[in-house]
Order: sequence, then structure tokens, then C-alpha cells
Amino acid sequence: MMRRITFFLVAIATMASLVTLVAPAPGQADGQSAAPYVTEMPPGYRDWRWISSTHEAGNLNSTGALLGNDVAINAFREGKIPFPDGTILAALHYKYVPSDENNAIFGQVQSFVPGAPTNIQFMVKDSTKYAATGGWGYATFVDGKPADAASMKSCFPCHEKAKATDDVFTRYTP
Amino acid sequence: MMRRITFFLVAIATMASLVTLVAPAPGQADGQSAAPYVTEMPPGYRDWRWISSTHEAGNLNSTGALLGNDVAINAFREGKIPFPDGTILAALHYKYVPSDENNAIFGQVQSFVPGAPTNIQFMVKDSTKYAATGGWGYATFVDGKPADAASMKSCFPCHEKAKATDDVFTRYTP
Repeated sequence: MMRRITFFLVAIATMASLVTLVAPAPGQADGQSAAPYVTEMPPGYRDWRWISSTHEAGNLNSTGALLGNDVAINAFREGKIPFPDGTILAALHYKYVPSDENNAIFGQVQSFVPGAPTNIQFMVKDSTKYAATGGWGYATFVDGKPADAASMKSCFPCHEKAKATDDVFTRYTP
Repeated sequence: MMRRITFFLVAIATMASLVTLVAPAPGQADGQSAAPYVTEMPPGYRDWRWISSTHEAGNLNSTGALLGNDVAINAFREGKIPFPDGTILAALHYKYVPSDENNAIFGQVQSFVPGAPTNIQFMVKDSTKYAATGGWGYATFVDGKPADAASMKSCFPCHEKAKATDDVFTRYTP
């Protein structure tokens, strides 16, 4: 009985090690999938500067802020296309909801604000590592966990349509 | 003739000096008006961190981002009410417009973004200097120029309705 439990524990430990070995390093692409994507959140993104905000109406009913690291902000301000390696864009998405507090004061349904978070998406520029997807690694996190590889396959084919601005939809808002 | 021109130039120079003397120092309140307000843009505000975004529908048809200096960001994250002296909030407002570029790609009118800038408003916390208006100095800039004092009289009476959150409407978006 004891031998069986020991074997079982060793087997679990071995499996855990293998998982660690095959998991991509922080910020690295998942080399196994056809479309490499980013599986670790870039640290400190919530302290990055504001690029712009968007509202997607209709089924998405989403509002979001695009933040960028220093490389991103400088590139936007200088109009650098393509974006240099090291650029990281963070799109923070939320439900688009009326602000009951504000509207009570204004006396009408006028004010809309970010509600519950829905996901956070990143674009990481590394023209070598992510050459297969236009030099950008894509990432989606829901509740802090990366989306599955299959769902990430639609990022590049859509962003590629914004080729004139290096696959980036958002413009810098002064 | 020369004496007259010299007198004229001296008179202009004297007037210019007087204007400089009576103009408020950068970031200081206009002590002459009943409701003190801020007449100089706090420097570097576009590099401040993102607090949240809002959309005001209806006649305003506005979208805006609220940015805050370090004191502001820390206060929001720690839930400090009232906000400490030194807090500065910057509300950057724009026309709320559809993104023709994005919508062409999405195949429907779905995407709304900041259009032309309309104004930038500030709230500067100094509980002594701005004691008459809840400790906040208010500011509105259009094309970089401060709005007239009369138009600023409506700021405090409306913001005061958000007394539970120290006259600040916007919530921090995580």
C-alpha cells in the first residue's frame, strides 16, 4: 500500500515538473501553436500611460482603455510605424454600463462608465519571435488567466486589416 | 516726435509689468473672484496615469478620460476620502465620434472613439486655498486658454452633490 502511494506521489511530482518544463517562460510565445501568443501578463501594465479609450456598441457593449509602456507612448507620439520591438499595448475591457450615481445627479440617463472587467488584451512587439503574426504577440486574459490557444487564432487575421498602422487599430488621443 | 515714441514705449512696458504683477502665479487661485479657480494648466498632466473613462450621451455627446497625478492615483487605490492636499485630477474631454476606419473593418457602426478635443478640466486639492469650494480649485481650459471666471461658478455647486466621495464623481477603474 505504502509503495503504491509513493509511486503515485512520484508520478504526480514528475508530471508537475513536465508541465513546468513545457510551459512557456514569462512573456514568451507558446512555441507549440501555429499562432504564437503571449501567456503571461506584462507586469505593471496598470501604471502605464493612457493612449486612448474606445466604446464598442452592439453585442460587445464594451468600453476599454488602451494603455502603453514607454516604448509604445514614444512611438505613438513620434508617429513611428512600424512600432519598435519592445512596444507593449494593454487593452483593458469592461462592460459598458450607465452610472446610476451620476445620472441621479444629472436627472437623466446620460453618463456611461466602465462596469465589471471582461478581459485584458495585450499586443507585444517582437519582430523575430512573433514574425509569423506580423511581429506582434497577442494575449487575452480573463480573470487573470490566459485564454486558450484556439481562441487566439482570430487576433492576427483581424488586426492584419489595419496594416497601414502596423496592425494597430487605436490612434493616440492627444 | 522721438520723445513721444519713447514715452509710448515706456508706457507700454509699464503696463506690461503691471499685467505681470496682477496675474496670478502658476497654479494659483484667482483671488479676485468669489469662487477661486485655477488659471494655469498643471504641467505634465498628459503623462499621468489613467483613473477611468466616461461617456456623456445626449447634448454633451462627449467622451473623456480622467487622469491623476501620483497623489491622486495613490488616494484612489487606498480609498482615501477626503483626497489629500496635492491631489490633481485632469479630465480630458473630446467629441464622441464613430471610428470610420474601425467600422469599415467590422462591417457595422460599432466603434466609437475620442474625436476633436473640446476642453480639459482640472480639480486641484488644497484645503486651505480653496476652502470656499470644498477644498478643490476648479479649472476649465479650451484650446489651452482658461475659461472665464463666470463660467466656473457652476463647478462647485454640481460637484458638491457628490459629497460622499469628496465632490469627485469618477470612480477608479481597476
